[in-house]
Amino acid sequence: MYSIIMAGGRGTRFWPASRQHRPKQLLTLFGQRSLLRRTVDRMAPLTPPQRVVVVTAAEHAEALAEQIPDVPSENIIVEPVGRNTAAAAGLAAAWVARRDPHAVCLVLPADHLIDDEEGFRRTLSRAAEAARASDALLTMGLKPTFPATGYGYIETGEMLDPGPPPLMNVAAFHEKPDLETAEQYLAGGAHLWNSGMFAWRAEVLLNEIAKSLPTLAEGLAEISEHLGTEGQAKALARLYPRLPAISVDYGVLEKTENLRMVAADFGWSDVGSWEAMADLWESDEQGNACQEGNMIKREAEGNLVSAGGRLVALVGVKNQVVVVTDDVVLVMDRARGQELSEVLKMLEERGLDHHL
Amino acid sequence: MYSIIMAGGRGTRFWPASRQHRPKQLLTLFGQRSLLRRTVDRMAPLTPPQRVVVVTAAEHAEALAEQIPDVPSENIIVEPVGRNTAAAAGLAAAWVARRDPHAVCLVLPADHLIDDEEGFRRTLSRAAEAARASDALLTMGLKPTFPATGYGYIETGEMLDPGPPPLMNVAAFHEKPDLETAEQYLAGGAHLWNSGMFAWRAEVLLNEIAKSLPTLAEGLAEISEHLGTEGQAKALARLYPRLPAISVDYGVLEKTENLRMVAADFGWSDVGSWEAMADLWESDEQGNACQEGNMIKREAEGNLVSAGGRLVALVGVKNQVVVVTDDVVLVMDRARGQELSEVLKMLEERGLDHHL
Repeated sequence: MYSIIMAGGRGTRFWPASRQHRPKQLLTLFGQRSLLRRTVDRMAPLTPPQRVVVVTAAEHAEALAEQIPDVPSENIIVEPVGRNTAAAAGLAAAWVARRDPHAVCLVLPADHLIDDEEGFRRTLSRAAEAARASDALLTMGLKPTFPATGYGYIETGEMLDPGPPPLMNVAAFHEKPDLETAEQYLAGGAHLWNSGMFAWRAEVLLNEIAKSLPTLAEGLAEISEHLGTEGQAKALARLYPRLPAISVDYGVLEKTENLRMVAADFGWSDVGSWEAMADLWESDEQGNACQEGNMIKREAEGNLVSAGGRLVALVGVKNQVVVVTDDVVLVMDRARGQELSEVLKMLEERGLDHHL
Repeated sequence: MYSIIMAGGRGTRFWPASRQHRPKQLLTLFGQRSLLRRTVDRMAPLTPPQRVVVVTAAEHAEALAEQIPDVPSENIIVEPVGRNTAAAAGLAAAWVARRDPHAVCLVLPADHLIDDEEGFRRTLSRAAEAARASDALLTMGLKPTFPATGYGYIETGEMLDPGPPPLMNVAAFHEKPDLETAEQYLAGGAHLWNSGMFAWRAEVLLNEIAKSLPTLAEGLAEISEHLGTEGQAKALARLYPRLPAISVDYGVLEKTENLRMVAADFGWSDVGSWEAMADLWESDEQGNACQEGNMIKREAEGNLVSAGGRLVALVGVKNQVVVVTDDVVLVMDRARGQELSEVLKMLEERGLDHHL
């Protein structure tokens, strides 16, 4: 069994903490370890570092490798360009298949936080077991805790085994809903969040890709000949950019008839934005949350602060995100996190790329 | 002629830029030079550095001396404790009197900004001339530019010489007025701001102190014997704390019959708080003023920012003071600058003195 950690993200939503060369998964947004380091550690009881495979982007590979020195360097697969999750998961499956095509791949984003890690591992073990026992692709569905409009949903089908955790068929995929629909989903109980966590045997995913995405399958087959050889990086540089860029959900899971779902409930956050930290950082009675360091407050409410351990004094300040790094200060209305991408565009336009 | 620079301030209103060991007069709040350095430079056409005398507090003396290496170290008089302006000005007059009792002392705060420096020097030269020609104490009255409630006012008396700049008697001193009174003063034209700038011969001030503050005069006489000797610091440590703490305005100027005023109009700021920087820093059409460095703004209005050259991004932020130093971040409603002293109290209570 292998853990495949998808670490290709170039996340901008944690700017200015996240940067071109320091994406979200490498940040310590919570506690003492980066999100990536936590992900590797979380999987350790299931897969030792020797059986962790990380797919990442060229510009982050070096900083990433420094954070996980226990993962062998040959297990870090560098995408020369991003080609979405079907290509990334296929590449990892091809890499694993050269060692053992029957091996189960547990596929996980590098940048999520999990509350109940035991429960998390029970869920993944259950999915791995199902992947081993059949030719199915397994997806993890998460029990919604609020009517989220930012996630896709998976509608539960026929119950195959009540578990816990329960194993079931999938009735349908649903795109990000509007609030009303999301509230119906939450009330109905038959729709789970699409988590981006999967389990499958390497050969099974590659077979499914061959069926639904033949161009991708051909490209992967050509790349596969060079994996684990000296020519790997060169072959990837030449061949990977030509692969179709499509998500594994849309390109494979929604098309196969061999899909199963494990329903999970282990306290999960995709740590999607500064706003998400309101629930993760410790906060005072006025809802001021600070990542670390001391705060002095006078009539301060609902602020989110990350200031690299500096003392933070807030006087008459409400609902602001305050982030300070060595070279950048961000003060932003909490409700306007979506505008960070515009801020980054403005930086680019003004030739301030070194702050990106 | 000597310039006496009063640099004893321990200003807290520019925290966190100003600190216990780095008071306002040592900060570069505007342009490239500190307020103190600007004051020394501004006086240079009237008094070379050899005839500049600085009265300062022990905890700032070292940093202060570094900023004005051209001023001889024996001209920097260190108060072991603050004893208000009558004692400080008297001490400086005693120091000057040992060299030349007839010398004119131009007395100036270390931490003001002047727009029209030529006009400023013309005013002081006029006051010096009057001090030389009579036994009067001269004060500079500033033409008000708005109905300030934070300054004392001096009511003009009989015109002695229309100048320019005009020389006149003083009719009365008025404490900080309420807004209505301040508006009347502004409209009437017969009330000038009390600037804290003075001119007098050393012997004349000492005589006036002897008349109105005999205890202070006795103490200064005792100290005077040690000035310029090896025992100066020791004598000050022993005798200075015993001097009465009273302002030169209240203790001397309001009591003497030998007071004259020069009416001045040279564009002046006492740089009293972060709020004052709104008029001094360059600002954009939305009233955002930044001390230095680049700003990225989206719906940002009326903010004052000092971030040590960091890039500053403001998204949906209004009327905030944002100050970032190596170890502290302050975000504060612009209208609440008065509360900084409370913030410093809270720091002390929580044992965070190293941020004071």
